[in-house]
Amino acid sequence: MAVKTWFCEELTGQWRQSLPIGPALVDERSDFQHIQVFETEGFGRMLVLDGKVQCTERDEFTYHEMLAHVPMLTHPKPETVVVVGGGDGGSVREALRHPSVRKATLVEIDPQVIEVARQWLPTMAAGLEPGPRLEVVTRDAAEVIGSLTPQDIILVDSSDPEGPSEVLFSGEFFRSLKAALKPDGVIALQAGSPFFFGTQIAAARRELEKVFRYVRPYLVAIPTYPGGTWCLIAASDAHDPQAMSLEELRSRRQQRALELRYYSPEVHLGSMALPEFVREL
Amino acid sequence: MAVKTWFCEELTGQWRQSLPIGPALVDERSDFQHIQVFETEGFGRMLVLDGKVQCTERDEFTYHEMLAHVPMLTHPKPETVVVVGGGDGGSVREALRHPSVRKATLVEIDPQVIEVARQWLPTMAAGLEPGPRLEVVTRDAAEVIGSLTPQDIILVDSSDPEGPSEVLFSGEFFRSLKAALKPDGVIALQAGSPFFFGTQIAAARRELEKVFRYVRPYLVAIPTYPGGTWCLIAASDAHDPQAMSLEELRSRRQQRALELRYYSPEVHLGSMALPEFVREL
Repeated sequence: MAVKTWFCEELTGQWRQSLPIGPALVDERSDFQHIQVFETEGFGRMLVLDGKVQCTERDEFTYHEMLAHVPMLTHPKPETVVVVGGGDGGSVREALRHPSVRKATLVEIDPQVIEVARQWLPTMAAGLEPGPRLEVVTRDAAEVIGSLTPQDIILVDSSDPEGPSEVLFSGEFFRSLKAALKPDGVIALQAGSPFFFGTQIAAARRELEKVFRYVRPYLVAIPTYPGGTWCLIAASDAHDPQAMSLEELRSRRQQRALELRYYSPEVHLGSMALPEFVREL
Repeated sequence: MAVKTWFCEELTGQWRQSLPIGPALVDERSDFQHIQVFETEGFGRMLVLDGKVQCTERDEFTYHEMLAHVPMLTHPKPETVVVVGGGDGGSVREALRHPSVRKATLVEIDPQVIEVARQWLPTMAAGLEPGPRLEVVTRDAAEVIGSLTPQDIILVDSSDPEGPSEVLFSGEFFRSLKAALKPDGVIALQAGSPFFFGTQIAAARRELEKVFRYVRPYLVAIPTYPGGTWCLIAASDAHDPQAMSLEELRSRRQQRALELRYYSPEVHLGSMALPEFVREL
């Protein structure tokens, strides 16, 4: 009889998801976290940090496309992009699809995540291939952010606000993001599950609204995150991500020759139509 | 040490969700299926048919609101509604919120599901309270549908296309739905997970397009269905659910005094902005 090994991720004792896995390809502890990579049966390879699924090869496109392209198509011509976290490379990969980008800077606190992705997650780490447009900084974003030249786009592709990412959800960090942006820059960040982390989403939104003129939560479907729906937030002082016209978004997508599997101009606007219980958070 | 009992639902060997449960409140086999009700720790009571989660008290509003209100607000004045399946009562409950409804008919093949809901799932079975506007028919919808007087709305709130619900996904059944509708009637049905049952959704869409002029898939977030996102489809010969204006939907919602937790006119249209990989199914 073939015996399956199951990876289990538990959500505050209420709910668990499990995926059948092969032997661990990676199972190591860095200075910051426990890093694992497994081969799964239905989702390709899966990156796990401190026991939480970060991404699988099968469904990471939904999250990474929406985190990158909503703010980047809101911006008329993004030339400089910083990705905070995102050591797997998926967000940088999406950012670099925009031909106007001259310089993308990945600020990832944990160099071991980057090494692991380069060795084991090649479809995501495609974004990490050395090149003149990419700089990789392996330091704490909260320390580095103040020293950056002003950027067009900042994507905060963090893990959840526990452990090394807790500081990335503070009002202080949001103010430092603004200081690191050009006046017409746009940011996006992940804020959690609207079903399970409503309080956390509401807190992030409230803090962002103290800092940015336009703060727009939006939703993305991703089966391997608890609850299957995740809230991202885009924010800017100059460009309202929700006030974009379909025509403008279509024109920008075409000019930038983006061929995508999740994002479309219709989805950009549709994802901001928040269910009533999310709107009220 | 407190030991938890976990209910597990497995999806084709790729993925599993588990919820901690108390002792079964219901655990019986009807002529059609295995019926269970459990108290969960985080989701209230949960109805399980043949091992699959049908609804929990905490998140059923998302699915039931979207199944009912998208077609019913697409219709200018729904007076007659048939719900196929839906023995838990949630869909009828939502349908009866529309004051124009004179008659709602629930056609549920399994009387034991209705009995169980009335005893154990009162928030959903609120829709099943006897009254002059409700008729309950415990027969096979495929047999009954031909004998109905023409309806304004038909909601197919079925289980998945295995076992007793398989016939509800055939071209023949879709043609019988059309025959049971007024010329300007609107239907909606559940079609499955866009991540896991793409082939099934594509097949249902193709068959519906042979029968109805307007066929509009749309998505709803529901954490306890595998993958967390579900595809519903609305269809009609007279009213295009996607061509509604926000103003008209708002006006209808207000006239009907609908106070909802998921559906809004914005969500109605936004839910039809399908991610590229779903649009291409």
